[in-house]
Amino acid sequence: MAKESSSKTVPGTPLLKDELDIVIPTIRNLDFLEMWRPFFQPYHLIIVQDGDPSRTIRVPEGFDYELYNRDDINRILGPKAACISFKDSACRCFGYMVSKKKYIYTIDDDCFVAKDPSGKEINALEQHIKNLLTPSTPHFFNTLYDPYRDGADFVRGYPFSLREGAPTAVSHGLWLNIPDYDAPTQLVKPLERNKRYVDAVLTIPKGTLFPMCGMNLAFDRELIGPAMYFGLMGDGQPIRRYDDMWAGWCTKMGLPYIWHSKASNPFVNLKKEYNGIFWQEEVIPFFQSAVLSKDCTTVQKCYIELSKQVSEKLGKIDPYFNKLADAMVTWIEAWDELNPPKEAAGVPNGTAKGK
Amino acid sequence: MAKESSSKTVPGTPLLKDELDIVIPTIRNLDFLEMWRPFFQPYHLIIVQDGDPSRTIRVPEGFDYELYNRDDINRILGPKAACISFKDSACRCFGYMVSKKKYIYTIDDDCFVAKDPSGKEINALEQHIKNLLTPSTPHFFNTLYDPYRDGADFVRGYPFSLREGAPTAVSHGLWLNIPDYDAPTQLVKPLERNKRYVDAVLTIPKGTLFPMCGMNLAFDRELIGPAMYFGLMGDGQPIRRYDDMWAGWCTKMGLPYIWHSKASNPFVNLKKEYNGIFWQEEVIPFFQSAVLSKDCTTVQKCYIELSKQVSEKLGKIDPYFNKLADAMVTWIEAWDELNPPKEAAGVPNGTAKGK
Repeated sequence: MAKESSSKTVPGTPLLKDELDIVIPTIRNLDFLEMWRPFFQPYHLIIVQDGDPSRTIRVPEGFDYELYNRDDINRILGPKAACISFKDSACRCFGYMVSKKKYIYTIDDDCFVAKDPSGKEINALEQHIKNLLTPSTPHFFNTLYDPYRDGADFVRGYPFSLREGAPTAVSHGLWLNIPDYDAPTQLVKPLERNKRYVDAVLTIPKGTLFPMCGMNLAFDRELIGPAMYFGLMGDGQPIRRYDDMWAGWCTKMGLPYIWHSKASNPFVNLKKEYNGIFWQEEVIPFFQSAVLSKDCTTVQKCYIELSKQVSEKLGKIDPYFNKLADAMVTWIEAWDELNPPKEAAGVPNGTAKGK
Repeated sequence: MAKESSSKTVPGTPLLKDELDIVIPTIRNLDFLEMWRPFFQPYHLIIVQDGDPSRTIRVPEGFDYELYNRDDINRILGPKAACISFKDSACRCFGYMVSKKKYIYTIDDDCFVAKDPSGKEINALEQHIKNLLTPSTPHFFNTLYDPYRDGADFVRGYPFSLREGAPTAVSHGLWLNIPDYDAPTQLVKPLERNKRYVDAVLTIPKGTLFPMCGMNLAFDRELIGPAMYFGLMGDGQPIRRYDDMWAGWCTKMGLPYIWHSKASNPFVNLKKEYNGIFWQEEVIPFFQSAVLSKDCTTVQKCYIELSKQVSEKLGKIDPYFNKLADAMVTWIEAWDELNPPKEAAGVPNGTAKGK
């Protein structure tokens, strides 16, 4: 009898506890970790304390962590600390920079463990690891969704030459309960809840933009870390809540779900998003048509080139974009300072073909 | 209190019984219709009898139908009948041509009513109609999947200017039980069954190719009918089972599911697919890079131009593609003969921006 379980799937899921850091931006005591204890305790946590650095953040016992507040960030990065947002969850990307691990998982502190339709608690991190360790299929859409899942495969008509897929750079998890709506939609639909558990993982096709959310996100830091800059948001900046990037990397989306418990105040959000709502109408066509030159052989070079285009093409919308472009350059400089390239030639950009 | 049910959703789902034909290609008695009776009986059926025209196909009582066998097709189309496949389910597209309705739903005769996870029988046709009557979102991916569904919306970061969507041209339903695998995959995984009910409808993003399957498919015939040619397959042709097109139209995919009961013989399939498996490796890059000129203002003109490119660029792979290109032209001629344009200027191509 033929073997039914596919050799493409990961047999069991490795914990990767020495290869993954969990990054949590916060302004409060991390009591939410109690619920995640069975899943997160084996991992090292990087806590990025936002807001007032004199406040003490309580972390439940038994967790292995390092914590950085604004004073630490200023001390470590010096003037380059200007590229790290303040009073906005975009500050989390400092954690990406100081990590030395291959993978990052980042989660908001108002997110709890969700249950699948059978009532079982979902180990979101395990599903993210599965997603990151199996390839993406950005070049051709598969109607059975993720072909690398148990019980699925490529359907008739799927080119055999594309069945190896491309390395997965980002795993974008979803959330039940409070949907991630912008302020106007929150205002119109205050009571809407996301109750639909969609049992699917799919690849965002190449060239397709989507609203990436940092609430429940894992990525391959070695592959694309320097590009995971969440921008210049929050205090002193004209926009907030637009920190999650529009990413063009090979992204798997869908499972795992987490439980998003707290809807933020839509009136406050409207003020934060106000400019972003206008600007996104011009920023998105910009990203849709952006082309990088062939000289961009590392993530860093790609990102610097992108910063130039941001300044040239978006600077005319608002001077903020010139500031953002400068911050993008500073970010890369700070990244390279904390993560010196192993070879002078630079790290090859493994996902270039996936872009 | 704010209104929670979105005004974007179709309130109830119209039956559209005077605007939709069901097209069924078959070689056998249509006993499978008994199971579909509660859902299909209000509609007109167009049955395209494949194979031996002298055979009598029994249709269960109470259904309103017209039936065409090969003799009928030859009589109606004369020499142009050559563009309609014989001994392959691609013959179904004759039904698209003789229909006078706005919408088509086509289903294979080995497909039965599936049940949702709660055990309720799924009215696949009703879900297709819902899909066709709500817009697609091909220009930007929404992480809550179909934003037009009850309980869903566009998430934070989704540009407001794109929230009207584009007209939906194709609704691609899925199937539980026997997966639609090619012969090699069938041979390797004879016992694999699709048991996963994915409760989602999503838009295939613009520019993304996917393996469309004619097993459970609905489309807007007025919008894209002439482009729904299933090619030249079956008897006397070097390939079969590649009839379902690679469509670049605005396509919604996902729900509804049907129950696919019969796995065809993988050894027979391998013989039928043999050439297709090689050719798809060159055909897919061709479609990925195909560009139509701005003069193509109707579906017909687009299709004729595409036929020229098929001949020029794919003809060198095998003379079959020259024959296919000729058949594409014949198909459009036959379409226009049976469906004379209402205005001399031609029908405007409403989906051009969605392509």
